[in-house]
Amino acid sequence: MDPQPGRLAALRAELEAAGVDALLVTSLPNIRYTTGFSGSSALVVVSQTDAVLITDFRYRVQARTEVGADVAVEIEGTSLWSRFWGVLPRLTGARQVGFESAHLTHADYQRLMDSGARWPWRPTTGIIEGLRQKKDASEVSCIRQAVSIAEAALAATVPEIRVGMTELAVGARLERTLRELGSEAHPFETIVASGERSALPHARCSSRELRNGDLLVIDFGATSGGYCSDITRTFVVGQCSDAQLEAHAVVLEANATASGAVRAGMRGKDADSLARDYIQRRGMGSEFGHSLGHGIGLEVHEAPRLSKTADAPLPTNSVVTIEPGIYRDGWGGIRIEDDVLLAPEGPVVLTSFARGLLQVG
Amino acid sequence: MDPQPGRLAALRAELEAAGVDALLVTSLPNIRYTTGFSGSSALVVVSQTDAVLITDFRYRVQARTEVGADVAVEIEGTSLWSRFWGVLPRLTGARQVGFESAHLTHADYQRLMDSGARWPWRPTTGIIEGLRQKKDASEVSCIRQAVSIAEAALAATVPEIRVGMTELAVGARLERTLRELGSEAHPFETIVASGERSALPHARCSSRELRNGDLLVIDFGATSGGYCSDITRTFVVGQCSDAQLEAHAVVLEANATASGAVRAGMRGKDADSLARDYIQRRGMGSEFGHSLGHGIGLEVHEAPRLSKTADAPLPTNSVVTIEPGIYRDGWGGIRIEDDVLLAPEGPVVLTSFARGLLQVG
Repeated sequence: MDPQPGRLAALRAELEAAGVDALLVTSLPNIRYTTGFSGSSALVVVSQTDAVLITDFRYRVQARTEVGADVAVEIEGTSLWSRFWGVLPRLTGARQVGFESAHLTHADYQRLMDSGARWPWRPTTGIIEGLRQKKDASEVSCIRQAVSIAEAALAATVPEIRVGMTELAVGARLERTLRELGSEAHPFETIVASGERSALPHARCSSRELRNGDLLVIDFGATSGGYCSDITRTFVVGQCSDAQLEAHAVVLEANATASGAVRAGMRGKDADSLARDYIQRRGMGSEFGHSLGHGIGLEVHEAPRLSKTADAPLPTNSVVTIEPGIYRDGWGGIRIEDDVLLAPEGPVVLTSFARGLLQVG
Repeated sequence: MDPQPGRLAALRAELEAAGVDALLVTSLPNIRYTTGFSGSSALVVVSQTDAVLITDFRYRVQARTEVGADVAVEIEGTSLWSRFWGVLPRLTGARQVGFESAHLTHADYQRLMDSGARWPWRPTTGIIEGLRQKKDASEVSCIRQAVSIAEAALAATVPEIRVGMTELAVGARLERTLRELGSEAHPFETIVASGERSALPHARCSSRELRNGDLLVIDFGATSGGYCSDITRTFVVGQCSDAQLEAHAVVLEANATASGAVRAGMRGKDADSLARDYIQRRGMGSEFGHSLGHGIGLEVHEAPRLSKTADAPLPTNSVVTIEPGIYRDGWGGIRIEDDVLLAPEGPVVLTSFARGLLQVG
C-alpha cells in the first residue's frame, strides 16, 4: 500500500483552505494516515512542496519501507525536536505553520513558542481527522478484514466457554485466536465482563469465575492493515431469565433500529436519538448512559461521534459503531455493538455475528 | 489497595514546594497513582484540603469502588470539562492552580485560558512522575508478580515454537498464556520479530514464518495490579551461527555488566554508558542505536531514563529496564532486557529467565 500521494494532495488542499503554508503533524494516527509510517515516535511536517518524517534509530529500516517516495525520512539519534528545528527552515515557503492543537502538549507548544519564535504558529483542529472520516475502498477492505478476524475468533471462542472459567481465561482464548487469525494488534483492552461486572461498561477482564445465570459481555476487536474493528455481543451463562431476555430485546431492537436508519448526512445527535428514543420509550432511558457510537479506522475511537451533543453530520463513507446498552448496578449489563459503513446508498452493517441472547457454557 | 491517603499527602507536600495551591491532573497514570482510579477518562483536581475525581457514566460504579474516602467522585453525563468549571470554584483556597504541561493538549490549555481566565494557571512538569519513580513495597510486589506471569508465559511458549510457525502464532500462544496466568492487560504490543525483522527494534508480530537459522526476538510484558513488566529474550531457530553467538555474547555481557553495576544515585547517562562503552569496545557501538533503558511501573515507559542525554540521577527504589541490543540491517537483531529494582543496597534483577542464546524449534 502506498497511500501517501493522494492523501498528501488532499492534505495540501486542506492546508491551503486553512490558510497555513505547512502543518506540523504530531498525532501518530494522523502521521500513519498521511505517510504510511506505523511506528510509535515521529514528527512530520508537510508543506505544499515537501513532506518530511523525523523518527528515531529504532525505525530506520521500517520508516524507509513504509513511507513512499514523496516523503523524506530523517533518522535522529537524540531528539526529534532538535532535528525538527534543522528541517523546518529548509522547507520552501513555510512561513505560516500550523500545528495540531488537540495533539500537541502544552510542553511541546512551549517549544514552538521558545525555539520557533520566528514562525507565526497557528493552531489547527481536525484537519487530518476530517480526511480520515471518509474511508476509501482499501480502508473499508481493511476494516472488513478486521471484522472478519474478530467474528471468526469469537465464533471459535464461544463454544469453549464453560461455567467456572474466569473472564481472563475467556479473554485468553479469544485473544489467542485473534492473533492466530492474523490480528496485528489488540486495538483496545479486551472486555470480558460477567455477572454484576457486566454493568461496568469498561470492565476489561478479571479473575471472576463465570456462574450460571450470569450475563456475559464480550467487547473486543482486531486490527488489519492498521485498521480496527470493534464488536460487542452479550451472552448468558446457562439459562437466561425473563428479565434478561426482556432487557436484551430492548437493546437488540435499539441496535437494529439505529443500524437500519443511520445515514450519512444525519447529525451525530440524531443518529444517537435513533436508539436512545426507543430505549426511553421502553422506560429504560436512564440505564443507557453512554453515547451510541463512534467512528473507527486507524483508531478505535475517532471521528465522527454519535452522541447527544454531536452536531456534526456523519460523513459519507465513514465507518461507525452502533452500540446501545443497558446497565443496572448489581444486576448486570447488555450491549450489542456493530460496525456500520455509511455508504452513499445507505448503511452497510459490516458485522454479522448472531445478535440473539445466546446461552453459553 | 487504598493508596490514596499517603500519596495525596506526598502530592500535597510537592504542591506546596512548587508554589501552587492545587493541581489539575490530566495524565491517566498520574490519576491512577494518586486516586486509584483505573478508567480511561477522568479529570482530577487536588488541593491542600480537597481531591475530586470527575469521570463519566461508564465508570460510575468502578470509580466509587476504586478511589478511597479522601477523593470525592463526580459522575458527569456530558462534558468532564463543564463539570470541572463547576467544581473548581468550590475548592477551598485554590487560587494558584497548576496543570500538567506534558499531559495537557494545547486545545485543553486553551480551555484553561478561555473558561478559566480568573485563575492564574501555572504549568508544572513531573510532579507526580517524580513521586512515581520511587516504588513502595506494594508496587514492587505488583511488578514482581507481572514479571512472574511474563516469565511463566514465556517458559510455556518456548517449547511450542517450531520452524514454519508465524510470528503471530508465537505471539498468540504467548498472549493466551499471559492472560490465563492473570495478566490484566498487555502493557504494549507484543514483539515477535524473526530473521531480518529482528533488526527492527519495534517490529510487533507479522505473518512471517520462522526459518532455520533465524534470530528470534521476543519482547513483551504482563500487567498485575496495574503495574507492568517488560522483558526481552533472543532465541535462534534451529542451529545458531558463530556470528550470532558472538554478537549475542556481546549483548549478554553488556546486559550483565549494566545490571550488576547500575546503582541508585547514578546519573541516567552514566548507567547508559555501562553497557554502551562495553559494546563500543567490542566494535559494535554503531549497532546499538537506542538507549539502555527506562523506568517501568504503571506505565511501561516512565521516568527515569537511562540514555546518553539523561542527566538526572536514578532514584532509590526505582525499577528500570536494562536492555542493550545490536541490530544489523538484513542480518537481524539481538536484545536482552531485564527489569531491575534499584534498592538502597544495590541492584536487584527481578527477571530471571535464562539469558543464553537458546535454540528453539
